[in-house]
Amino acid sequence: MEDNQSDAGKGTTMKSTIGNQLHLSLFGESHGAAVGVVIDGLAPGIPVHPEFIQHQMDLRKPKGKISTQRQEADQVRILSGVFEGMTTGTPICLMIENQSQQSRDYAKSKDLARPSHADYTANEKYRGYQDYRGGGHFSGRLTAPLVAAGALCLDLLKSKDILIGSHLCQVAGIEDDSFSADFKQLKEEISRMNETYFAVLNPKAQQKMQEAIEQARKQGDSVGGVVESVVLHLPAGVGEPFFHSIESTLSQLLFSVGAVKGVEFGDGFALARMTGSKANDPFRMENGRVVTSTNHNGGINGGISNGMPIRIKTAIKPTPSIYQPQQTINLATYENAELKIEGRHDPCIVHRARVVLDSMIAIGLVDLLIERYGLMWFAGDPK
Amino acid sequence: MEDNQSDAGKGTTMKSTIGNQLHLSLFGESHGAAVGVVIDGLAPGIPVHPEFIQHQMDLRKPKGKISTQRQEADQVRILSGVFEGMTTGTPICLMIENQSQQSRDYAKSKDLARPSHADYTANEKYRGYQDYRGGGHFSGRLTAPLVAAGALCLDLLKSKDILIGSHLCQVAGIEDDSFSADFKQLKEEISRMNETYFAVLNPKAQQKMQEAIEQARKQGDSVGGVVESVVLHLPAGVGEPFFHSIESTLSQLLFSVGAVKGVEFGDGFALARMTGSKANDPFRMENGRVVTSTNHNGGINGGISNGMPIRIKTAIKPTPSIYQPQQTINLATYENAELKIEGRHDPCIVHRARVVLDSMIAIGLVDLLIERYGLMWFAGDPK
Amino acid sequence: MEDNQSDAGKGTTMKSTIGNQLHLSLFGESHGAAVGVVIDGLAPGIPVHPEFIQHQMDLRKPKGKISTQRQEADQVRILSGVFEGMTTGTPICLMIENQSQQSRDYAKSKDLARPSHADYTANEKYRGYQDYRGGGHFSGRLTAPLVAAGALCLDLLKSKDILIGSHLCQVAGIEDDSFSADFKQLKEEISRMNETYFAVLNPKAQQKMQEAIEQARKQGDSVGGVVESVVLHLPAGVGEPFFHSIESTLSQLLFSVGAVKGVEFGDGFALARMTGSKANDPFRMENGRVVTSTNHNGGINGGISNGMPIRIKTAIKPTPSIYQPQQTINLATYENAELKIEGRHDPCIVHRARVVLDSMIAIGLVDLLIERYGLMWFAGDPK
Amino acid sequence: MEDNQSDAGKGTTMKSTIGNQLHLSLFGESHGAAVGVVIDGLAPGIPVHPEFIQHQMDLRKPKGKISTQRQEADQVRILSGVFEGMTTGTPICLMIENQSQQSRDYAKSKDLARPSHADYTANEKYRGYQDYRGGGHFSGRLTAPLVAAGALCLDLLKSKDILIGSHLCQVAGIEDDSFSADFKQLKEEISRMNETYFAVLNPKAQQKMQEAIEQARKQGDSVGGVVESVVLHLPAGVGEPFFHSIESTLSQLLFSVGAVKGVEFGDGFALARMTGSKANDPFRMENGRVVTSTNHNGGINGGISNGMPIRIKTAIKPTPSIYQPQQTINLATYENAELKIEGRHDPCIVHRARVVLDSMIAIGLVDLLIERYGLMWFAGDPK
Repeated sequence: MEDNQSDAGKGTTMKSTIGNQLHLSLFGESHGAAVGVVIDGLAPGIPVHPEFIQHQMDLRKPKGKISTQRQEADQVRILSGVFEGMTTGTPICLMIENQSQQSRDYAKSKDLARPSHADYTANEKYRGYQDYRGGGHFSGRLTAPLVAAGALCLDLLKSKDILIGSHLCQVAGIEDDSFSADFKQLKEEISRMNETYFAVLNPKAQQKMQEAIEQARKQGDSVGGVVESVVLHLPAGVGEPFFHSIESTLSQLLFSVGAVKGVEFGDGFALARMTGSKANDPFRMENGRVVTSTNHNGGINGGISNGMPIRIKTAIKPTPSIYQPQQTINLATYENAELKIEGRHDPCIVHRARVVLDSMIAIGLVDLLIERYGLMWFAGDPK
Repeated sequence: MEDNQSDAGKGTTMKSTIGNQLHLSLFGESHGAAVGVVIDGLAPGIPVHPEFIQHQMDLRKPKGKISTQRQEADQVRILSGVFEGMTTGTPICLMIENQSQQSRDYAKSKDLARPSHADYTANEKYRGYQDYRGGGHFSGRLTAPLVAAGALCLDLLKSKDILIGSHLCQVAGIEDDSFSADFKQLKEEISRMNETYFAVLNPKAQQKMQEAIEQARKQGDSVGGVVESVVLHLPAGVGEPFFHSIESTLSQLLFSVGAVKGVEFGDGFALARMTGSKANDPFRMENGRVVTSTNHNGGINGGISNGMPIRIKTAIKPTPSIYQPQQTINLATYENAELKIEGRHDPCIVHRARVVLDSMIAIGLVDLLIERYGLMWFAGDPK
Repeated sequence: MEDNQSDAGKGTTMKSTIGNQLHLSLFGESHGAAVGVVIDGLAPGIPVHPEFIQHQMDLRKPKGKISTQRQEADQVRILSGVFEGMTTGTPICLMIENQSQQSRDYAKSKDLARPSHADYTANEKYRGYQDYRGGGHFSGRLTAPLVAAGALCLDLLKSKDILIGSHLCQVAGIEDDSFSADFKQLKEEISRMNETYFAVLNPKAQQKMQEAIEQARKQGDSVGGVVESVVLHLPAGVGEPFFHSIESTLSQLLFSVGAVKGVEFGDGFALARMTGSKANDPFRMENGRVVTSTNHNGGINGGISNGMPIRIKTAIKPTPSIYQPQQTINLATYENAELKIEGRHDPCIVHRARVVLDSMIAIGLVDLLIERYGLMWFAGDPK
Repeated sequence: MEDNQSDAGKGTTMKSTIGNQLHLSLFGESHGAAVGVVIDGLAPGIPVHPEFIQHQMDLRKPKGKISTQRQEADQVRILSGVFEGMTTGTPICLMIENQSQQSRDYAKSKDLARPSHADYTANEKYRGYQDYRGGGHFSGRLTAPLVAAGALCLDLLKSKDILIGSHLCQVAGIEDDSFSADFKQLKEEISRMNETYFAVLNPKAQQKMQEAIEQARKQGDSVGGVVESVVLHLPAGVGEPFFHSIESTLSQLLFSVGAVKGVEFGDGFALARMTGSKANDPFRMENGRVVTSTNHNGGINGGISNGMPIRIKTAIKPTPSIYQPQQTINLATYENAELKIEGRHDPCIVHRARVVLDSMIAIGLVDLLIERYGLMWFAGDPK
């Protein structure tokens, strides 16, 4: 912990690029001209549905009192890689111009590092040259192009009957019901969640969660939660050993979302308290297919899918932007200071984060599926 | 979940390669000629200490009744990249020849997929061509070269006073004490854990854990646990935004270890139940340095280090190799079958996994530190 | 050569991404909405000079009778990564909107594969889904964002006194004088070439070349040539062994430019006719510095710079778009056909390609310099 | 050129890793314990033929008076990734132990930088920590594992009827005949060259070349040459745009071989003197297949294969190890010095380099073919 300040003089770069087969290159800042992403590696001949992209963008948008009041049209402009409604096979650039740029809120307190935000760490890393307005490149706004990219991937997976869905299994300490173990019902629940803005299975839990968020907002405070995601119909044999296992691939993507602080697969931390005889999932044949009787391992053995549903839980910390006075330091003088955040902020982002997590999972799985089956698997028939 | 079998006819590759700055290329199988790793990207002029490598290898070795009876010399042979005791700056190949290859144990039951192992999934992925003996490339044996590579990285970090240590904070449901919040004491605890084979802070907890493991062994069963790791003195400003954040980088590496099913940073899943006013870590100046009053976020803001200790918890599932009869399928006939595992297996691998996790964390941090400071930071002075 | 058609049914992706340290992700099509590039990996605090970017764009623009009549403003819009005139250290997106989109020229003959263009090969690769207008993603127009990215890199190198310059050493069979062997004069020549649109050292050769181009234009034909490039003041010790040697790195980038069909370093193919005693460059000390008496190897030994000028020659084939009738096939019917190209085309692109090659060299060297010195070398001082 | 010495204090890494789909990680030094390569990304179920690997190793071995007298068994040991004669789909490590380590030859003159070798540049780069014996990691000996890896790839390509062959089209100024334009005869010539140690089409040219080499040897001198390579039956549509075009991919690999100073595709530098009407290759249908009437572009349009033979010429400089006294500097004192090389060296390496170039081409094409068709294309049928 010594010397953390003395290396403020060291500069470096950042790498907002991911993917072995499907390359994503993310760009933009919260209050810059635009945010966007270049997607390199999708097959030609895939239909692109702008209305589905917009549907996903809308799930991420702030709505009502439980969200920030910043309003962005979030209209996705396709700059390249799509021709006559289909992917060409060449890089796709998706761009969203920023419209609501109230930068003056930030200039006022630009030297006061917001606790648990990237203000201090980015200042250390970028030597003070970072765009400090609204978190710059570290803003949650950067998840907008990721949702757009994720929409392309979700669409692609759906064309192979691979379905992804999530619900808020806990918000502000209030628990939702679990996803059903019955595949037919689970499929219906996924479908319902994908159409719901505040994705909770149990309506009563939903109401209590929203009340708790409203309560936190009134107190100038914020709350967090846990998102449970499930992937249905992923074929067995997907995922690479070691560094590109399903867990490695998806956790890297999920943890890249700002507020995520924990990820577990299957029964996760609960597995660590079981015995092997309880934790092992016995194989058996069912209607000519291989299944497991239980699914404690979340559909993954040795990093590779076994054909059962992939189960993931992701912990989202409470939004760090709160309106209560906070102790901090001044980055210009390195003296203690008090901060009172103004501007427009979310008392809870768990419900908005849900669609971001779905997108990250979809991006990771498309990457692994291309690695496994090659591009042909997704391409359109020859014209 | 349909069709998981029908694509048994699709082949693919695997990628046992990792790292943006420090490239690791892992190879080998449990019962093949050798396991090893090529490390490309270390600076020249770094002293290599074979005795420290061996010390780390010994922490990973099975010992006593609580481990497998397979005994390997695990002598690491340096094939390249080290000259007159120093790194040359060119690729380092570390190789460990396999000696104890009792393959016959496996041939007998090679078609019976061991539940929660990679037998079924690897068979799907590799079309039946995988080396099935002892899990082949998916064996825990592959962590031996990772520990050797990690030893180089741990040594390198130590030369910069960056210290990594772990303890078993839970095994078989028995909890250890927490790491101290006091930096001086924490440093001493890290040092102590790094010299201890069964790394538990509280001797009573240690004894109970070992009794529980012994108990599980007698029942032909196994247990899991949680490892808590801490990184001390990591400078502020390390980590890249998004896909190469500290959390993304380390979780990718940690989840690549076979038995890991959950990873959290700072208070992790517990953060998801806090309010922002509790979860935020206020900054303040202390003896001319920036510190935070609490450390709920585990020393990471926006994916970048803030100079406070990095805190990580990793969930390890119980070893899937148990001696009780298990239901499974026959991979040759796709019929239900019963399996009774023989051979030599661990009733618990949490204590052996500890040094593997330390190694993965070290590898990830060296990668990020090179990205931040360039190679010069680690290189020896010109000869 | 058999079966080249039968796999028309196989689709695939493309990867328009490059760089180990400095990631470039290129996007766009000739007649799409925009072309652009995301540059990830530049240090923070580097001054960005839009007027220099525009200067370079102007060197690439068609001018006069010796070029295509397509006129584009080629105004580079910086979408991200630059704040208050300086790089932030986060990804830079440079976008150029397409304005002059006379697509109808192409629709007419879209099924007639232009010989030596990518029409047929892209149709095979992308199953007919490629944007065929003006070559789509394969158009020379994609070199515009590369020149913009190259301008950032050239500027960066200049700040370290590393200078790149090129002249047309041969066009239409007419030879220019050679670059001077005297460093002071060479520096002056580089400077002069960097300000010259049609970069030829000898004015008489320049005039003859332009006459030959004009002649070719009148005949509906085209001509090619050779560009000689030189890099001055590159420190010794830059370049990686094997796959990332200076030659490997730069040739990969140079051959990515459409019309390039040959690359040589130092005396290149002429070296293959020398004896070792002639080809070797003896070392000696000169004013306390290491120099070589000759420079047949173009400043590179074992793939690494030795401090002498880097010398590169790049062969550019004649523009394939000619106005004479050509034999070809119809991609819709796979029958023989005759093609008469219309539209706006260059009778020679060697002079315009020059600045593209300079850009590619600059991009490659910044990549290798970051690998060698880390980012700090280029970063601005802490604010 | 200034300051090339002053940064002798800067250290860095090297990256001996290549490939987008097929990862190669090369390791070893000329006089270290072993040289080798890890190959990650080959499909499962591919038969491995050790005798073909050895056949290729033998083509690379020094033989007779025209080669170095260093004799190595060059026995390739397969450490992993092959099981029961087939690839498993997991990483393959090929290792060759060094036997003939006459290090004392080098210790004597270790501070005298051999002109046109990597001695000086490696010393700058690695701060003096490099293994100086016999060029260390920069030795031609490192091409041995590349030939072994190339053998796997050549074998793989052959299983798809994709054939690669080369001849020495010029050695010491003496020209060989050209490859035949007739496909049937070309196929026969490729086959013949692949069985010939000194691969020249015309026996008289062969004899003259060998006499010239012998002559150079007697004079303590060396000679260079040009290798012409051809790829037959590569399907149309292979290669990525821009940075991963066939030319970019293959040139990066070819230039990674130490002595290569020039690479051209099709008519290469000669194309730069043609007019477009001569240089363009008209398409036409022939027996239901697309062909071009001429092949000036070497089977590549826009970086992608068109189904015609790929044609490549590679310039190899004369071996820098000559026995005549040479002027150089002393790396310990930075003073002028005279060097007289001893030890065992080749007066010509063009004939031995041939099989290395074939290997590099094969490695590059397998990488591009996996990118295009996915792994399934190469995998064995399900067991």
